Amino acid sequence: MNQATAIDTPAFAHVTAAIATPFRGADLSVDLELLERHAHWLLGNGCDGLVLFGTTGEAASLSLAERTAMLERLLTSGIEPRRVLVGTSACAIAEVVELTRRCAELGCAGALIMPPFFFKGVTVDGALSFYAEVFARCGAKLPPIYLYHIPQISGVAVGPELVGRLLERFGAKIRGYKDSSGEWTNTAEIRARFPQLETFVGSEALLLANLRAGGAGCISASVNVQPGATRRLYEEWRSGEADALQEAVARLRKTLEHSGPLIASTKAAVAALHHEPAWAIPRPPLVALAPGERTALVAGSRPRGRLP
Amino acid sequence: MNQATAIDTPAFAHVTAAIATPFRGADLSVDLELLERHAHWLLGNGCDGLVLFGTTGEAASLSLAERTAMLERLLTSGIEPRRVLVGTSACAIAEVVELTRRCAELGCAGALIMPPFFFKGVTVDGALSFYAEVFARCGAKLPPIYLYHIPQISGVAVGPELVGRLLERFGAKIRGYKDSSGEWTNTAEIRARFPQLETFVGSEALLLANLRAGGAGCISASVNVQPGATRRLYEEWRSGEADALQEAVARLRKTLEHSGPLIASTKAAVAALHHEPAWAIPRPPLVALAPGERTALVAGSRPRGRLP
Repeated sequence: MNQATAIDTPAFAHVTAAIATPFRGADLSVDLELLERHAHWLLGNGCDGLVLFGTTGEAASLSLAERTAMLERLLTSGIEPRRVLVGTSACAIAEVVELTRRCAELGCAGALIMPPFFFKGVTVDGALSFYAEVFARCGAKLPPIYLYHIPQISGVAVGPELVGRLLERFGAKIRGYKDSSGEWTNTAEIRARFPQLETFVGSEALLLANLRAGGAGCISASVNVQPGATRRLYEEWRSGEADALQEAVARLRKTLEHSGPLIASTKAAVAALHHEPAWAIPRPPLVALAPGERTALVAGSRPRGRLP
Repeated sequence: MNQATAIDTPAFAHVTAAIATPFRGADLSVDLELLERHAHWLLGNGCDGLVLFGTTGEAASLSLAERTAMLERLLTSGIEPRRVLVGTSACAIAEVVELTRRCAELGCAGALIMPPFFFKGVTVDGALSFYAEVFARCGAKLPPIYLYHIPQISGVAVGPELVGRLLERFGAKIRGYKDSSGEWTNTAEIRARFPQLETFVGSEALLLANLRAGGAGCISASVNVQPGATRRLYEEWRSGEADALQEAVARLRKTLEHSGPLIASTKAAVAALHHEPAWAIPRPPLVALAPGERTALVAGSRPRGRLP
């Protein structure tokens, strides 16, 4: 792939936040109001796409009914469906199918799907039969499919062999690939072997490498708090400033990673950004950063002007 | 614990099958008729307890509605609720609560619960807050709770520290512990530190050791095909024949483990046992044993008279 191809690729988006989910302190219910405000803030400040119900969105901790209500609320509030990629993963096929069909009915950009994540030692044949079953049951209500590779959490890889067999069998139904493994060599192999896929890295710290390899962009937790800086990097990636811009966004990412588990530190940073303490609360089994960690996080990111 | 205590413990059961789930070949729907027949066969041939919706039962691949329908069908068919322990695990607390409350309403022996299994690196505090939230939401509809330790699949351990803190906080609400780690040292530590718990090993190959340590019994995949032999071991565990009986049940367990992934080989063995080929079918992402593996499995277990 030459560099021009990246820009010419009609990817659904390039700077994409894996949007976090706000919960009320009192009963841990989803705060749809805060969610809506943050989603609009992201799209108004550098993002051109949102992933709902990714790992950062604590999708696993949300019921199907909650996910549907959140999606519908955002679309009703005026967010264009073509800006929204919907995580529809679940362990039970019936649940994946229900949300994936809903995603197609609503005209969303696509469904982001990882293989079922309870069983370990899942074979390529087994993962393939899972996707085949989902696609068959969705029938005509099948949105563009984005494959989700995050083996360090899900325990089940979506590696090059599986991708190749899915493309062989389902062709253009498979539209993209999100690589949250953090292993650039895997992303590079996917880019090289399957240039037709919109390829996203899971961290803006790898955005420049991905764009240089012809990839589409990033879908990232930390973009929740630095959509603008990530946008600048995307816009300037072929300029002489690219490396410095890349280094700057990677720095805040590292601060978040070193402040605690990434989801908790991202939520604490969003809470600081919007002055809404409730944003810092995750659902069990995740825990919020301790007050001391939170203070250190905000202080650590302030000198570089990344958080208010 | 002395040996007498094991027998005096009013455990809900001692020889317990983690019952497999039969699916129809045509559409992978649950075959309630086959399930009912197998459940009655198990209880009539050596089992005094059943675990519904354990790992072997492919609980993760079942929707909440399917699990509820299966449970209600078995109870309607005349199986006593006090013989049934219900796996109510899910990643979303709302789903765990719904099935756990139903389990209490129906008067089942208890709910078998592992911590949410998507996120990794879950802390003891996080797992504790998950259980606390579930118990609070169940309110008066809280059945006896059995903790489910299967870290090699779930990725989240229920180790001695967590057990200790749960007992400290919730006392007799925590009734038992299922150790599917296969690590006897962990079971032994749980027995020694928390003798008030009904402790179950996840394989009948460890049943004798567990009974000698004062444990309650086993909850096992392979008991689906050798309830009678496991019963004899349980009845004779203090006799001179115990070691030979233990060796015999461990042998079939090993045959199943060496024939392929345990769930697939167990289902193939149940299919052979009942002459019902559909039993061999799992839901994706699991795959059935290949025909050659199935033949080898049946041949391998036949000489020792364990399968017809």
